[in-house]
Amino acid sequence: MTEQLVRPDPISGFPEWLPEVRLVEQHWLDKIRQIFESYGFCSIETPSVERLDVLQSKGETSQEVYTLQRLQADAKDQTDASLGLHFDLTVPFARYVAANAGRLVFPFKRYQIQRVWRGERPQEGRYREFTQCDIDVIGQDNVPLHFDSELLRIVVEVLTALDLPAWTVNVNNRKVLQGFYEGLGIHDTMAVIRVVDKIDKIGPDAVSDLLASDVGLTADQVSATRSLALIRGTDSTVIDEIRALGVKSDLLEEGLTELGQLLDSFADLPAGTVTADLSIARGLDYYTGTVYEAKFLDWPGYGSISAGGRYENLTGSFTRKKLPGIGLSIGLTRIFAKLVAEGLIQTGPSSPTDVLVVVPSDDRRIDAQSAAATLRGRGLNVELYHQADKIAKQLKYASRKQIPFVWFPPFEDGRDHEVKDMASGEQSVADPAAWSRA
Amino acid sequence: MTEQLVRPDPISGFPEWLPEVRLVEQHWLDKIRQIFESYGFCSIETPSVERLDVLQSKGETSQEVYTLQRLQADAKDQTDASLGLHFDLTVPFARYVAANAGRLVFPFKRYQIQRVWRGERPQEGRYREFTQCDIDVIGQDNVPLHFDSELLRIVVEVLTALDLPAWTVNVNNRKVLQGFYEGLGIHDTMAVIRVVDKIDKIGPDAVSDLLASDVGLTADQVSATRSLALIRGTDSTVIDEIRALGVKSDLLEEGLTELGQLLDSFADLPAGTVTADLSIARGLDYYTGTVYEAKFLDWPGYGSISAGGRYENLTGSFTRKKLPGIGLSIGLTRIFAKLVAEGLIQTGPSSPTDVLVVVPSDDRRIDAQSAAATLRGRGLNVELYHQADKIAKQLKYASRKQIPFVWFPPFEDGRDHEVKDMASGEQSVADPAAWSRA
Repeated sequence: MTEQLVRPDPISGFPEWLPEVRLVEQHWLDKIRQIFESYGFCSIETPSVERLDVLQSKGETSQEVYTLQRLQADAKDQTDASLGLHFDLTVPFARYVAANAGRLVFPFKRYQIQRVWRGERPQEGRYREFTQCDIDVIGQDNVPLHFDSELLRIVVEVLTALDLPAWTVNVNNRKVLQGFYEGLGIHDTMAVIRVVDKIDKIGPDAVSDLLASDVGLTADQVSATRSLALIRGTDSTVIDEIRALGVKSDLLEEGLTELGQLLDSFADLPAGTVTADLSIARGLDYYTGTVYEAKFLDWPGYGSISAGGRYENLTGSFTRKKLPGIGLSIGLTRIFAKLVAEGLIQTGPSSPTDVLVVVPSDDRRIDAQSAAATLRGRGLNVELYHQADKIAKQLKYASRKQIPFVWFPPFEDGRDHEVKDMASGEQSVADPAAWSRA
Repeated sequence: MTEQLVRPDPISGFPEWLPEVRLVEQHWLDKIRQIFESYGFCSIETPSVERLDVLQSKGETSQEVYTLQRLQADAKDQTDASLGLHFDLTVPFARYVAANAGRLVFPFKRYQIQRVWRGERPQEGRYREFTQCDIDVIGQDNVPLHFDSELLRIVVEVLTALDLPAWTVNVNNRKVLQGFYEGLGIHDTMAVIRVVDKIDKIGPDAVSDLLASDVGLTADQVSATRSLALIRGTDSTVIDEIRALGVKSDLLEEGLTELGQLLDSFADLPAGTVTADLSIARGLDYYTGTVYEAKFLDWPGYGSISAGGRYENLTGSFTRKKLPGIGLSIGLTRIFAKLVAEGLIQTGPSSPTDVLVVVPSDDRRIDAQSAAATLRGRGLNVELYHQADKIAKQLKYASRKQIPFVWFPPFEDGRDHEVKDMASGEQSVADPAAWSRA
């Protein structure tokens, strides 16, 4: 009987990596986690699955949700029909905080590194399954401004640690935008924000046209809005530029103070790390203060690689308590997959092995095994070669896997152990109880 | 407008943990990963989602699969209709190996720690989403016997490191069972294996009855089969016990040699760590040699906490190449959730923070920030308290989160930094550039 074979190709939009690429991704994940923890953020994970009413509690992105169905469920069995995969980590986090508020210490600082799913059509930078790295700080009633600067510093630290092609973090403050538009006498400030947010994609002229035609701004309002949107700068001189436009409101003043303080707090970073960009607004309605997004400089059309901001109320759909916060999300897969596609991921070994211990002969297996155990006990990752093959074959295995060291237990009684550095080819006597990687 | 609130309770069968519990789980995951890597296993991850034909390539567990549907897809759009969440890590791994065989180095040693999903009714020990920790070694044409012993040693090392309530690893060899039944003149050995595998649940008498009534064994065959199934022992004397039953076949001989060697290789472990149990078979048809399962001794009715074995062909559904292997799976969630339910998880702090740096006053924030940065740069996890609250309040925050050390930057110029050990209450002068946890 010859059974039909099943095609083993992966599904588009669901990335997977060869071991040597995964090893780099793992290294990235470890670094990100280490940086998050170094600022005292705790880890939480939520289920991949939420009830649909939870997923839709903010209404917006419902078209991207994958719902679940049991393959063998009959039509009448609707037990799982109301479940779906989460499409971000914010909604599940909001539910988690609402469910556990009494058992958490506030300000609650958590990080969450998990996969999320969106039923989108796959295209560059858009995946159907991808990993997000989120951190948020949630306060009761208020979240000190300190965290705006801390979170941005964490993003900078992460993006720097990943050694990426040139990027910048664009920051803005929603109070500046809203206060400025209010100062211009505009009522539907949200409509203006939504149009201005498109400036990157459609350019300032098209934005001006839309502001006049769709939002109904006067020529003066359009002109001032456009001037504001074009302001960019890497230090607090942008605050003076904004003031020079002559618009005034209390909210604008508040926003300028916050933005100025934020920019000042990054004075120690290399120029260009953080850029004030008065056009960015981060479409979502719920940001209320600092907003930011990070982008690759050489791929301006590529989506943001990290984004976030300050919001008034995380858990409004679930509880009457007011829990404001500030959060950020790093698009791990979006960054990593782009670099893989551009050939910019430098891969090395395909395994974490530091040392391959040779099995010289079946008689000597015990010595080899005990050398391996000794080295392992000292924190090294050690493979014991699996059978007494010819030494050349064992060495070839090590070099194919780019294992950096090969260990030779004594080939006969009374001889010493030796270790070979595969890069230099040097071989020297060594003691498994004392040797370490140079 | 008062919007209807959404209930934030988690869904049954989808576990989630408070931060202090998650911290323990994370510690477990780190240990498991570290042990897997210390034997040179590389990490891979596969998408959570596979095509249904891949998921069903082995046919068996189709009723447990969750399929995906886009919430907004119209009935005609079947793009995603053929996708489902993986229910184990073996099927996706088989697909991965088949897809990438030309780019992997064999024997291919991989570990995979991921969530899996099953549309089961939740009950004790059964979850709809849970984390599995798998390792497999895949060979081309053959996998040396060395790995049977190595994998079992890894399980033992992991279960030991997790410091669990009493457990044992039961081992057997399918060749012994099949060879023994063949030696008894039984043709449908698989039917016998399936019945004997139930001995744990239904007892030896019911098994004997079924062997006679359902499989049609003679009284002598039933009696010998029963005698074999009741043999248990912690060393290779079980081999003699089996031989004493007087049954002979080549396959039995081969199995006894393998089982004997395996047991001998664990002579250095504490008695009871590994137990030969001639009843276990691991239901699945594809195991062909060594099989094992680990169980809690005090909860015999609770499912196996780890299981695995040797199989002839991993990728048979995908390729004509023969790729035999040996694998094991550790049921992380099954173990962890049981211990949580039994109150046996000792939780500590709710964050990874080593040191909380106090902000004595707004003037002193810079000093506090710089002390935090210095400590962080030296590998410590450091929270900077978020505002210049009263010191008592800052200390209370540290003690609620069980942060072990509180750092006091100088309250005025010319004074020293001090650090307080929250457990002992001791406070002493310290230098952020030199201090370390005792």
